Amino acid sequence: MAQASLALASALKDVAANIDRHFDALLAVPDDPRAELYEAMRHAAIGGGKRLRPLLVHATARLFHVDAISVTRVGTAIECIHVYSLIHDDLPAMDNDDMRRGKPTVHKRFGEATAVLAGDCLHALAFEILSAEETHRDAFVRSELVAELSHAAGPNGMAGGQMMDLEAEKSSFDLPTVTRLQAMKTGALISCAVECGAILGRVAPDARTGLRGYARDIGLAFQIADDILDVEGDEELAGKKLRKDGDAGKETFLSLLGLDRAREQAQALVDQAIEHLHGFGAEADLLRDIARFTLDRDR
Amino acid sequence: MAQASLALASALKDVAANIDRHFDALLAVPDDPRAELYEAMRHAAIGGGKRLRPLLVHATARLFHVDAISVTRVGTAIECIHVYSLIHDDLPAMDNDDMRRGKPTVHKRFGEATAVLAGDCLHALAFEILSAEETHRDAFVRSELVAELSHAAGPNGMAGGQMMDLEAEKSSFDLPTVTRLQAMKTGALISCAVECGAILGRVAPDARTGLRGYARDIGLAFQIADDILDVEGDEELAGKKLRKDGDAGKETFLSLLGLDRAREQAQALVDQAIEHLHGFGAEADLLRDIARFTLDRDR
Repeated sequence: MAQASLALASALKDVAANIDRHFDALLAVPDDPRAELYEAMRHAAIGGGKRLRPLLVHATARLFHVDAISVTRVGTAIECIHVYSLIHDDLPAMDNDDMRRGKPTVHKRFGEATAVLAGDCLHALAFEILSAEETHRDAFVRSELVAELSHAAGPNGMAGGQMMDLEAEKSSFDLPTVTRLQAMKTGALISCAVECGAILGRVAPDARTGLRGYARDIGLAFQIADDILDVEGDEELAGKKLRKDGDAGKETFLSLLGLDRAREQAQALVDQAIEHLHGFGAEADLLRDIARFTLDRDR
Repeated sequence: MAQASLALASALKDVAANIDRHFDALLAVPDDPRAELYEAMRHAAIGGGKRLRPLLVHATARLFHVDAISVTRVGTAIECIHVYSLIHDDLPAMDNDDMRRGKPTVHKRFGEATAVLAGDCLHALAFEILSAEETHRDAFVRSELVAELSHAAGPNGMAGGQMMDLEAEKSSFDLPTVTRLQAMKTGALISCAVECGAILGRVAPDARTGLRGYARDIGLAFQIADDILDVEGDEELAGKKLRKDGDAGKETFLSLLGLDRAREQAQALVDQAIEHLHGFGAEADLLRDIARFTLDRDR
């Protein structure tokens, strides 16, 4: 985090505090047999992660002076999807991870059945948040947000990319296939965060081209940086097990490009992402800072 | 099915054919590494089940002359949620079932990781279907449908009820707690089907009281009948393993009420459900037939 600009560091802190506060209220533990389910959701959702996706909603929506409450609710909904996917990806049948964000994974702490259900509940809650009138008074905006997030989460987005990732252990994917896999697995939800910021700003679909290019480029840069961190990073700082892709024999940007070309490629993508913002002035500086931050991070 | 009226038998057949046709188009297998994921979703979603929930959307929406395409799309979305919940409930960490609708369960046939992802994808697809303009041209209606279904699927509905069901193996629940558990686990999605039919019909919330009472009563009657079938039914006809609740030491309507009182209670609920429809004429006969059918079925 030492590398983040002052404005970015402050935005990261504010957004994280907002999201935590929102999750704390949303996931108040009921006094009935579902208490453990809520504890499991809180364990996964509160107090961890960079909150990159909610930050992207915030940084995009500020270009268009969107209400703070809409921004927080949409950020929380997208984070619900991100957190549910981490819970399910960590399951023994999937990546079988014991640690996440420096804590035991949900199934390690609460058991597998509760982990499956906690993920399912966060998945449903995302759409309950988006479709509520408090998120936006205009039903058309609410419906667009749901369309965007459900597409990004489903078989043509994140979950489809995760399926391709499972197949990557059995096949030897080439660079276009790995690029498509990552564009779906992590890129779709990152793009969705920017798109939802634009939807809240009532930007017409054909005026979103620049923002879409920005989102696509930082999504890919983020994943290349992740591949590099996976090989060069510190497990303590990362809060999770590293170097699993190599062990599983999966092709990654790093294995296909080598370290030097991967670094160059990631930097080129960040430059290109910033170029996509040329139509905006200083109000887009936070988006520019986020683009640089995708590479200069330690976790 | 011999007990169903001619009109009901024909509606059951038509709705099932419509839903199958819709799933067949929705889940066309792509020529890429996600093929297995789509095969798994098709295995679970196509050609099985009574399609009770889509039938309830149809029977309710016909009271208000709703477009057929809206009815089919909303029925498919609710069935996506129902099918995803069956896939996840059957997982080894949950109910650990090998057979469902007379076929191997998804994880038996495609492996656990694919089963988790197939469920997650159907979950997301439900909301992608509802938020698409083809479902209804009015965004307010689309947003209401999403609000209703996401609430019915989440921690205050189906998934919350499933969590209570897991806890039921450890505790000894009383009748009010079992009633609440079942109202959430199976009742919420049944009520949601009727509610979505009314939303499509643009019935104002405070004019839905009768339909809500009907839905609540048949949901409970359906579950009592299920408990009775679980003890008295034929595994061959049911297409799944029976008599598991008793083996797991769970309290059910049957264990708490005894067979005779459970039968009386279910019949009283069906009569009461039909009474809730007194404001409707012959156009509600299909809903009345469905109420009777919840008891007179062999699977």
